[in-house]
Amino acid sequence: MRNYPQPLARLINELSHLPGIGGKTAQRLAFYIMSMEDKEAKNLAESIVDAKEKMKYCSVCGNLTDTDPCAICSDKGRRQDVICVVESPKDVMAMERIREFDGLYHVLHGAISPMEGVGPEDINLKSLIVRLQENPGVKEVILATNPNIEGEATAMYIARLLKPSGIKVSRIANGIPVGGDLEYADEVTLLKAMEGRREL
Amino acid sequence: MRNYPQPLARLINELSHLPGIGGKTAQRLAFYIMSMEDKEAKNLAESIVDAKEKMKYCSVCGNLTDTDPCAICSDKGRRQDVICVVESPKDVMAMERIREFDGLYHVLHGAISPMEGVGPEDINLKSLIVRLQENPGVKEVILATNPNIEGEATAMYIARLLKPSGIKVSRIANGIPVGGDLEYADEVTLLKAMEGRREL
Repeated sequence: MRNYPQPLARLINELSHLPGIGGKTAQRLAFYIMSMEDKEAKNLAESIVDAKEKMKYCSVCGNLTDTDPCAICSDKGRRQDVICVVESPKDVMAMERIREFDGLYHVLHGAISPMEGVGPEDINLKSLIVRLQENPGVKEVILATNPNIEGEATAMYIARLLKPSGIKVSRIANGIPVGGDLEYADEVTLLKAMEGRREL
Repeated sequence: MRNYPQPLARLINELSHLPGIGGKTAQRLAFYIMSMEDKEAKNLAESIVDAKEKMKYCSVCGNLTDTDPCAICSDKGRRQDVICVVESPKDVMAMERIREFDGLYHVLHGAISPMEGVGPEDINLKSLIVRLQENPGVKEVILATNPNIEGEATAMYIARLLKPSGIKVSRIANGIPVGGDLEYADEVTLLKAMEGRREL
């Protein structure tokens, strides 16, 4: 036997399709799964199928959810007058972790990237415009796309798009991460931190 | 929503049970799985259940296999007179990759470790003794347990156990890894490399 038995080879192959999981890690995980209790392994497999079946995208904001509209969109206790625009459901989770923002979200599922052929019509942007037209109560749109080229371009594009509507459009701040080190900050970040300085 | 929807939370939890997969990675994998095609995700789940169902331990050598005896044990083209003793099925795969060893294996599924309460009776060792008694044609046992405390202790124990039988018992060599650097080798390895030097 110079090769893995077929069921094991298949498992290794499937695992290696996951992001950040190379051949070696896929092997290690597969052998670990082989050593798991039958019930444990079944649980893992079931949780994949179950999550895949039950999780959908919210028809209002585009976030991942098991209800429609999602828990955030249907929570009337949250501020209805501010929408935070992010690139992915992961970003919603990150925002929710800070327990500060109490408004609504809009998930773009990507960012504008001419280099990769992703235009404004390829992301979940049109539905934001419709949403804003249908909800005149929205007073502010916070652009929380990533601070990289694509995220900045997307933010600029949306800002320009919303200009005529008169809705306030803001962009999250760039700067030195808390606990970070000036010495190790790249120049652009340091420049942004200086530009964004506030009087104390 | 301060927490993940239940199906997603369950998936993240199950993934984080895997070795080397912390909370952050489990999250990243779960979000990736959410973005996969339904069919792809189903394939992944199926491959886990399928491998778990079909893969067993060989009743002869203890290796992971989908047939019994395994492909190696039932391959009459391989040398039947030498058995390589390893700690885990992963080690069999590693050995097979060098395409040099053409004999049989015996998988201990562990190593003797008094510190962790693992004694000789807790690993797949008794079956090796029985196997050797039933197969007087075996001329050599190569001990390829890991070169750490437990592996060495296990090798020493087996060597002593087999002494009376008159079967040749050998231990794989320690030394500087090929492509390695003397400068970065630890002292014990360097000492072993010196001890194991061979005339050219």
